[in-house]
Amino acid sequence: MSLGEFELIDKFFRDCGARRADVAVGVGDDAALLDCPADMQLVAAIDTMVLGNHFLAHFPAESIGHRALAVNLSDLAAMGAKPAWALLALTLTKADPVWLDGFARGFGALARKHDVALVGGDTTSGSLCISVQVLGHAPRPPRMLRSGGKPGDIVFVSGTPGDSTGGLAFELGKFTVNPPAGITEEVAAYLKQRFHFPTPRVELGLRLRDFASACIDVSDGLLGDAGKLAEASQCGVSLAWEQLPASSQLVAVAGEARAREMVLTGGEDYELCFTVPPQNVDRMSQELPPSVWGYTAIGVLGERPGAVVTRGGTVMHFSHSGFDHFAS
Amino acid sequence: MSLGEFELIDKFFRDCGARRADVAVGVGDDAALLDCPADMQLVAAIDTMVLGNHFLAHFPAESIGHRALAVNLSDLAAMGAKPAWALLALTLTKADPVWLDGFARGFGALARKHDVALVGGDTTSGSLCISVQVLGHAPRPPRMLRSGGKPGDIVFVSGTPGDSTGGLAFELGKFTVNPPAGITEEVAAYLKQRFHFPTPRVELGLRLRDFASACIDVSDGLLGDAGKLAEASQCGVSLAWEQLPASSQLVAVAGEARAREMVLTGGEDYELCFTVPPQNVDRMSQELPPSVWGYTAIGVLGERPGAVVTRGGTVMHFSHSGFDHFAS
Repeated sequence: MSLGEFELIDKFFRDCGARRADVAVGVGDDAALLDCPADMQLVAAIDTMVLGNHFLAHFPAESIGHRALAVNLSDLAAMGAKPAWALLALTLTKADPVWLDGFARGFGALARKHDVALVGGDTTSGSLCISVQVLGHAPRPPRMLRSGGKPGDIVFVSGTPGDSTGGLAFELGKFTVNPPAGITEEVAAYLKQRFHFPTPRVELGLRLRDFASACIDVSDGLLGDAGKLAEASQCGVSLAWEQLPASSQLVAVAGEARAREMVLTGGEDYELCFTVPPQNVDRMSQELPPSVWGYTAIGVLGERPGAVVTRGGTVMHFSHSGFDHFAS
Repeated sequence: MSLGEFELIDKFFRDCGARRADVAVGVGDDAALLDCPADMQLVAAIDTMVLGNHFLAHFPAESIGHRALAVNLSDLAAMGAKPAWALLALTLTKADPVWLDGFARGFGALARKHDVALVGGDTTSGSLCISVQVLGHAPRPPRMLRSGGKPGDIVFVSGTPGDSTGGLAFELGKFTVNPPAGITEEVAAYLKQRFHFPTPRVELGLRLRDFASACIDVSDGLLGDAGKLAEASQCGVSLAWEQLPASSQLVAVAGEARAREMVLTGGEDYELCFTVPPQNVDRMSQELPPSVWGYTAIGVLGERPGAVVTRGGTVMHFSHSGFDHFAS
C-alpha cells in the first residue's frame, strides 16, 4: 500500500472508539499511555480473524469489524472484567474506503457501546488479517477462572448457542429460505444476525462475579468449551439434552434434534458457559432473573472426568453422523 | 490446521518468556490477569509482521521471532517504558515444529533478556502473519512524547542506522562479499546480524527519561522519523550530513556517501532518535557517556517546519537517485 493509503486508514480509525479520561496518550505516539485503577487487576486478551477462516470476502465489513472486537470482549466477559481499551493490528491487501468505512463503523459502534477507547494500532500490507487486543479491569481477587468449578456446581449457558452456526449455514447456502416449511425470511435474518453481530455478554460477566465459580466463553462449541472448563476444574461435566436452549428459529430450520446438536457443537456464539455452586443459585435467580438475563441451567459438574450429554438420565453416544439419540 | 497442531504450538510457547510474580493468570484462561504497579502508567504497543513484507520464507525463524518482539520493545523504549508482558497472535499455514522451535527460541531469548512474560496468545490458520502486543510501565508524568521537542533542542540517534538495510541487501543479493574490495565475510555477517537481530534500546530509553524532551523509534528511516518527531513537536529538524553515524562496515560496502544516505533512509533499525534541551546535554554526556551508550548528536530542532539535511551548513537536495551531494 502507498503512504497515502496508510493515511486514509488512520482517518477512519481516529475517532472510532469511545473517549476516555484514562487515556493519557492514545493513537499517534510510539505506544499508548494509560491510567489503570489502582485497586484493579489488568485483564488482557488477543484474538485474530483471518479471511477464509473466520469470514469470507463478501461478508459485510461492518460485521467483520464488530466480530473482531466482540470475540475479545467475550474473553473479558468470561473473566468478569470491564473492558476499557483496544489496540487494532490490521493487515490489508488494499485500502478500500468503502470496506474501511464499514469495518470502522462495526468496530466503533461496539466499542462505544462498551466504552472502549481505541488507543493504538498498526496497519500493514498483506493478506487480510485482523488482530485485536483488548485490555480491561477486574477487581481482586480473581473470580470465575476456568479452574474454579467444583463437583456439584450447576452448569449454565447464556443465550441460545448454535444460532451463529445456523446463520453461517444460510450465508454458505447450506440452509435456504422455504416458507411452506416454516423457514421464513425472518428466521434466516435472525440467524444471520446472530452470526454477523454476536453479543458479547459483558454486563452478564460483570454481574456473575457475585455468583459463579467458573466461566468460559463459548467460541469453539458448547460441549467442547464446557469440557475445557471442567478439565481446568479437575471435574467432569454432564449436560442434559432436554435442557439445551435451542432457539425457536434454529428449531424451525433444523428440527429439534439437529438444533440441539448445533447448540452443543456450533462455534462462534460468544455466549458464556458458567458454573454456580448450588447454594448461590437461588440468590442469582432473584438478582439476575433468567427471563431478563437469558441464561439456562444445562447440567452439572461431577467427579468423573470427561464431557457427556445425557437424555432421560442415560449417556448419549456421539458418532460421526451426530449424537445417537436412541442410545441406551 | 488440526487440533493436534494447535496443541503442538502451545507446547513451544508454554515456557517461552520470563516468569514474573505479577502474572496472576497467564496463558490458559480466557484472558490474562496482571498486577500493575499503582504508581505507574500502563504502556501498550502492537505491531505486525507479514511474510513477503517484513521477512521472506527462507529467513531464520529465530530472527522472525526476535524481530516480532523487538519492534514492540523498541516502541516501549521510545516512551521510556519498562516492558513487562507480551501477547502473541500467530497465524500460520502449517505447524512446522522446526520453524516453531526456532521462532520460540528467538522470541523467548529476547523476552527473557528483558524480563517479559508471554501471558496470552491466539493461534490461527492462514497466511503467515505475526502480531505482538507488548505491555509495560512508565512513571507518571509522561516524558519523551514525540510532541515534547522545542526549537534549539539537540537531536541524537543511538547506534548506526542503515546497518539493517545493509544486512537486508546482503540477504537479497544486492550486496555481495568481495574481499579484495574490503567487503569481507565478517562485514556481511555483521550487517546481516543487525538486520536479523536488531537491539531494542530498552535500557537507554529508561535512562533517557532524565534528559530527553522527545523520542521516537527509528523504524521507517531516520530522516522520516526525525521529521515525524519534529512535526509532532511543531518544529522542523535539521540534520548534519557530516555527523551521521555510518558504521565502518556499511561504509566498507557502500562507500561513505551511500552509507550516509542509508543512515538517513534505511528502515527497521529500531534505534532511538531523541531530542535533548541544550542545558541537559553535558549532564547526559557525563551520566550516559556516548562511548558506552553509543549515541551521536546529529542535528537540531528549529522553528521552520520540515526535515532537512545540511552539508557544510548548506541544505542538501534529495532526488530520486539519492541526496545531491553537490547542491549549493
